Amino acid sequence: MAVETLYRSSRDPEQLFMDKAAADRHDQMLELAEQLSAVLRHAVPSINESQAEEAGVFMARHREHFAKAFKRNGDALDELLVPTTD
Amino acid sequence: MAVETLYRSSRDPEQLFMDKAAADRHDQMLELAEQLSAVLRHAVPSINESQAEEAGVFMARHREHFAKAFKRNGDALDELLVPTTD
Repeated sequence: MAVETLYRSSRDPEQLFMDKAAADRHDQMLELAEQLSAVLRHAVPSINESQAEEAGVFMARHREHFAKAFKRNGDALDELLVPTTD
Repeated sequence: MAVETLYRSSRDPEQLFMDKAAADRHDQMLELAEQLSAVLRHAVPSINESQAEEAGVFMARHREHFAKAFKRNGDALDELLVPTTD
C-alpha cells in the first residue's frame, strides 16, 4: 500500500488536488473571489450575498480577461459574453 | 463675447468638460462600466440592470485598484472597503 499526498484549499475542502501548484492557484482564485464579492457588496448594498459570491467567482475565474480590461480596455471582456458552459 | 469649446461624452451628455482629455477619460470610464455591467448580467442573470450598472461604474471608477487586484492580488481592493463618500 502506498501513501499519497493530497492538497486542498481550506476555502474549498471538497476539491482535492494531487498537485500543490494547482491547489495554490485554486486557493488564490477563491481568495480573490471573496475579496471581489466583499467589494461588490460594499459598492452595491442591494446585491445579496449569493449574487456577490457568484459574480466574484466568475470574475476571479476569468482574471486574465478582467486584468486586460482594467489595464487596457473593456473589449477584452467581449469573449466572456459568448454563451459558455461554465 | 468669446466662443468657448466644450467637450462631453455622448454616453453622459449632461457632464461638460473644458478639457478634451478629461472628456476622453470620462468616456472610456463609462464605456468600461457598460462592458462590465453587461458581463456581470451575463454571469449572474439575477442581478438587475441598475445593480449591474452601479457595480460597473464603481469598478470602472476604481480601475487602477481592480487592475492591480486581477494582475497581482486582491489586497489592492482593501482600500475600497473603507467607507467612502463617493
